Amino acid sequence: MQEFELIAEIFAPLAGPDRPAFGLKSDTAHWPAPDGETVVLTKDMFIEGHHFFPTADGGQIAQKLLRVNLSDLAASGATPRGYLLGLALPDKTSREWLIAFRDGLAADQKEFRIELWGGDTVAASSLMLSLTAIGTTPEGSALSRFGARPGDALYVSGTIGDAALGLKCLNDELVPNARFIQRLLKPEPRLALGEALRGLATAAVDISDGLVADVGHLADASGVGAVIEQSKVPLSPDVRELVEKETEYWPVILTGGEDYELAFTIEPGRTTELVKVSQRAGVPVIRIGEITDQGEVIVRDETGTPLQFERTGFVHFDGA
Amino acid sequence: MQEFELIAEIFAPLAGPDRPAFGLKSDTAHWPAPDGETVVLTKDMFIEGHHFFPTADGGQIAQKLLRVNLSDLAASGATPRGYLLGLALPDKTSREWLIAFRDGLAADQKEFRIELWGGDTVAASSLMLSLTAIGTTPEGSALSRFGARPGDALYVSGTIGDAALGLKCLNDELVPNARFIQRLLKPEPRLALGEALRGLATAAVDISDGLVADVGHLADASGVGAVIEQSKVPLSPDVRELVEKETEYWPVILTGGEDYELAFTIEPGRTTELVKVSQRAGVPVIRIGEITDQGEVIVRDETGTPLQFERTGFVHFDGA
Repeated sequence: MQEFELIAEIFAPLAGPDRPAFGLKSDTAHWPAPDGETVVLTKDMFIEGHHFFPTADGGQIAQKLLRVNLSDLAASGATPRGYLLGLALPDKTSREWLIAFRDGLAADQKEFRIELWGGDTVAASSLMLSLTAIGTTPEGSALSRFGARPGDALYVSGTIGDAALGLKCLNDELVPNARFIQRLLKPEPRLALGEALRGLATAAVDISDGLVADVGHLADASGVGAVIEQSKVPLSPDVRELVEKETEYWPVILTGGEDYELAFTIEPGRTTELVKVSQRAGVPVIRIGEITDQGEVIVRDETGTPLQFERTGFVHFDGA
Repeated sequence: MQEFELIAEIFAPLAGPDRPAFGLKSDTAHWPAPDGETVVLTKDMFIEGHHFFPTADGGQIAQKLLRVNLSDLAASGATPRGYLLGLALPDKTSREWLIAFRDGLAADQKEFRIELWGGDTVAASSLMLSLTAIGTTPEGSALSRFGARPGDALYVSGTIGDAALGLKCLNDELVPNARFIQRLLKPEPRLALGEALRGLATAAVDISDGLVADVGHLADASGVGAVIEQSKVPLSPDVRELVEKETEYWPVILTGGEDYELAFTIEPGRTTELVKVSQRAGVPVIRIGEITDQGEVIVRDETGTPLQFERTGFVHFDGA
């Protein structure tokens, strides 16, 4: 299949016929951004063997790629609008794989009410994907990592650790658990929560590198520290059952990453508002600790003893 | 060098400390897009061995990657604002290469008055680059490929063929010519011309795949055809000298691509306005033909005979 045929047959159905995308017949997207809104942009790359298994289903890869970008938008409180897709495809890429990839995107476009706006397709020796997601927030309301203050309460959404244990399952290091694997392959970007936290959270980050690492990023960016109470970290029933028997999985849970939950801070007096926000978004949140002025992130066990980790999070590039 | 060190030491100097980029300490860029403007977005990917030679200088690769994206913005009449950069880096990537790459971007940021807004860095087995460029035009003024009408005059900027012959030089198929190679490695996005053509050009495209192929894209998108007079295609002195002696280079010139000039159409009565626009932008333009209702692109020689080409342009992906 040639480039133009590929775009017209496989990907054009993901794009509208008029602007922004012009049915993918243009090299540029033309988007009349709504007045009075801040445009939020994010970009993530996926590499075969690093971010997904070579045997992975095209639809799974597509949805994960899209969702990790949407998770970045969620952490900014942004409403997704559209995305650009870059595909570097080996010549051996089959039509079936491409259709599965496209259909995964189509399903998620419907779920998240966005469209493909454009992109680029090139030949390569191995599969590499790049996605740029575009969202908006009302001017002045975007969430960032930079506003946490000592004394702020530290919260996290959903449950932590499932995805990292899912990776252990896929690597044959743990008895397969379908719920863990599902969390790894198809994360749920916390968009409704992110939008609802506008004007309430003082800082927010999505958990991709690991709870400890990403709270660290938030703390670094805000020039503060944080204390996390291990006993407060929300666990799914399956994770709780596992780690109660085998406590050596705690570091995996706390540092393994790919949860795509939101960690965020609020002023301590605003708990009642947060309860309403959480209910409105339909996403549980729990207070796991607080922001300090100590300049580091400490996880304490139930006796108050700080835990030690060999590594605090996932490193994407560790080159020369 | 680890990911966070790489970003902080090498790339943060390309980004401002506040929004949109937050010194690259955020996963998202926050950009208050100007009210009343259309946002223009484009994305191109570069793959080692396909888009550049593995031995190429980091600075050259960086500038070409940025400039081909800016050329897409130029074809939309957009003013560049910022860009996101995706880097998939082999572990062997040296600090020297990265600094050369960064310095190439720094020089072009100054020239084109843009900043790095964000991106992503991952490990990979071979070098892959992805860039998303963001620009704006006043609402309703963006140029597209879709508005050419039969009878419109067809113009092209600058000169055609130098870059394709530069590739022949680098492939040892032609005696090296520094001007050809320079055109290949460091294209000049026609931003001033694109901006000046707002409200005047009925359609525009930048020439990346080749003059014949890209005029074909413009014609397809507009539902029209075109006639190009071979004798009118503007050539640099070096190209003219070569092709007058060795006419077999004509197909390379007309279909080789990577000129990054603009091909565009205007209503036939607006020549005087175009002369002023061309002077104001400081870019020569010449009429090479006209738009027809025939649904195909024909290149005629001086006797009026249509030329035949084995291929009309560069194909980026030709897989299964």
